[in-house]
Amino acid sequence: MYRLYGMSGSGNCYKPRLLLAQLNVEFEWVEKDILKGETHFTEYLAMNANGKVPLLEIEPGQYLAESNAILWYLAENTPYLSGDRWLRAQALQWLFFEQYSHEPYLAVARFIRKYLPPDHARYAELPRLHQQGQQALGVMDRHLERHVFFAGEQYSIADIALYAYTHVAEEGGFDLSPFAAIRGWLERVRAQPRHLAMT
Amino acid sequence: MYRLYGMSGSGNCYKPRLLLAQLNVEFEWVEKDILKGETHFTEYLAMNANGKVPLLEIEPGQYLAESNAILWYLAENTPYLSGDRWLRAQALQWLFFEQYSHEPYLAVARFIRKYLPPDHARYAELPRLHQQGQQALGVMDRHLERHVFFAGEQYSIADIALYAYTHVAEEGGFDLSPFAAIRGWLERVRAQPRHLAMT
Repeated sequence: MYRLYGMSGSGNCYKPRLLLAQLNVEFEWVEKDILKGETHFTEYLAMNANGKVPLLEIEPGQYLAESNAILWYLAENTPYLSGDRWLRAQALQWLFFEQYSHEPYLAVARFIRKYLPPDHARYAELPRLHQQGQQALGVMDRHLERHVFFAGEQYSIADIALYAYTHVAEEGGFDLSPFAAIRGWLERVRAQPRHLAMT
Repeated sequence: MYRLYGMSGSGNCYKPRLLLAQLNVEFEWVEKDILKGETHFTEYLAMNANGKVPLLEIEPGQYLAESNAILWYLAENTPYLSGDRWLRAQALQWLFFEQYSHEPYLAVARFIRKYLPPDHARYAELPRLHQQGQQALGVMDRHLERHVFFAGEQYSIADIALYAYTHVAEEGGFDLSPFAAIRGWLERVRAQPRHLAMT
């Protein structure tokens, strides 16, 4: 059985949990509290030298890091990742977009507002994070004005990856009301079979 | 013939150029100067709404963004990307590591020192970029103490992606002398057939 190391409330850790639920695959969840530094303890660094969650243990001692690499690994040969070369390339493009142009702004703004005290120095980062995150939301919204989902016209791991932090963008101080296409897409994602809410 | 939009001197744009050289695939190069804002002109945004390079035009009007998605697309069914599920997952893990934990520090530090005047306000970011970039180099070095390459024991697109900004880390103010395993790996990458220097 897969073992998944992660932190509840983390969007990156929610991604593989949602996919595993939709694949109807059982797994063991191991809670790691990054706020207590648990991912930088020696025994954890021996599993993932980069000290991050989520981490998938495939077999005892065989570990895969990076939320979107985990999604890809689990989705191979399932309806959540196309077999078509061009659709796979587009899925991958959006997975990299998510990690480079989206998560560093939406997830970080949410982290600051949700987990840090209001007088914390990192609140000064919010204006820049909001500006950059809005740009990412604009790119998504323009795509969704013409498409039902991100990679082709079928729900895939690209949607799972982008849903994780977009659906809680308001916790980071983002206003989704101007992004009508995104709001419609969030509803379509929530309507997928075996959808699982983030906890 | 492929058309590749990119900026000379950019590590992200160098990645697909290096792979295309090693695959011996001809392509047309279209220079886009990000410093002049050319990737935010209306006609460019119509090709890539995220306004970044590189961008691969596969067929007229068919565009793929994100350097590492382009690498994956081009490397499918070639010796530069394994067909084995676990080796592919590891390659993808390192591609995401590169974009999330490496490039935002090594590439950005290099950009500041190489392209901005010494009195620019962004020089204040360098201490934090160096600290985080050193961490990424540490993760790489520990891996390379036990492995010849990043995904399995064969040169792959994971090596190409990580080579791009690691081999010019010193331009960003990083000192590679403590990272003996990285320095050995850089030599092995340079020794690959049809290696192309970054210009």
